[in-house]
Amino acid sequence: MVMDDTYFMKQALLEADKAAERGEVPVGAVVVCRGRIIARAHNLTETLNDVTAHAEMQAITAAANVLGGKYLTDCTLYVTVEPCVMCAGAIAWAQTGRLVFGADDEKRGYQRYAANSLHPKTEVVKGILAEEAAARMKAFFQSKR
Amino acid sequence: MVMDDTYFMKQALLEADKAAERGEVPVGAVVVCRGRIIARAHNLTETLNDVTAHAEMQAITAAANVLGGKYLTDCTLYVTVEPCVMCAGAIAWAQTGRLVFGADDEKRGYQRYAANSLHPKTEVVKGILAEEAAARMKAFFQSKR
Repeated sequence: MVMDDTYFMKQALLEADKAAERGEVPVGAVVVCRGRIIARAHNLTETLNDVTAHAEMQAITAAANVLGGKYLTDCTLYVTVEPCVMCAGAIAWAQTGRLVFGADDEKRGYQRYAANSLHPKTEVVKGILAEEAAARMKAFFQSKR
Repeated sequence: MVMDDTYFMKQALLEADKAAERGEVPVGAVVVCRGRIIARAHNLTETLNDVTAHAEMQAITAAANVLGGKYLTDCTLYVTVEPCVMCAGAIAWAQTGRLVFGADDEKRGYQRYAANSLHPKTEVVKGILAEEAAARMKAFFQSKR
């Protein structure tokens, strides 16, 4: 099995599915450090009654906990949907080495509101399994109507 | 005693002092709902080894916990220093009714990187006890040199 961006994004999509099963907006994230997944998380804002409980925020906190340090310089954060402003800010503070996301979020994504908020050293890759991530979001919001 | 913005900002400054005592960047926050302080927090990024542990983030999480709902529509968040991009995003998600901050943060503040990221309904007041907040920041960073 090839451990590439697609492989790790599939793992993030599995997390998004866990969120969907709980009735949460289906976004999932994993943090990979030297080829190993060190944190997995999914959106839990409804369950925890907490707007800060996005997948990325929890993944960053968990990864720092595993590493014993607060910087993710040598890590890649995979997230199924474009991070919001809050999460982009956290990704910046963590000095995340790489950010890989799937679907764009034109309404709430950081690219619209805070395009220059990431750390200058963070490499960004987008569009990995974007259709799969977007399909989950679409199905979720249609079910809420 | 008059319970005005200056009064509540003094409470936030007391939180900033607690952060300074721990060797943390001295930022404090309180959340006030209908004249009552429902959450107090100070920056704990070093103590918790977590870039997301800013005063505002913890205050928002704690306030939502007290209210039993994730929106702070009827609340005012007081914070001694201008929120960063991450915190501005969280303040937006919480649909915070009012944001009152003290000193500007020209380097990391949301006004520079994400000026339009707050919720359109959030009223913003700045400059309350700004000198007191800035003096604490200055003393902290000078002690680190």
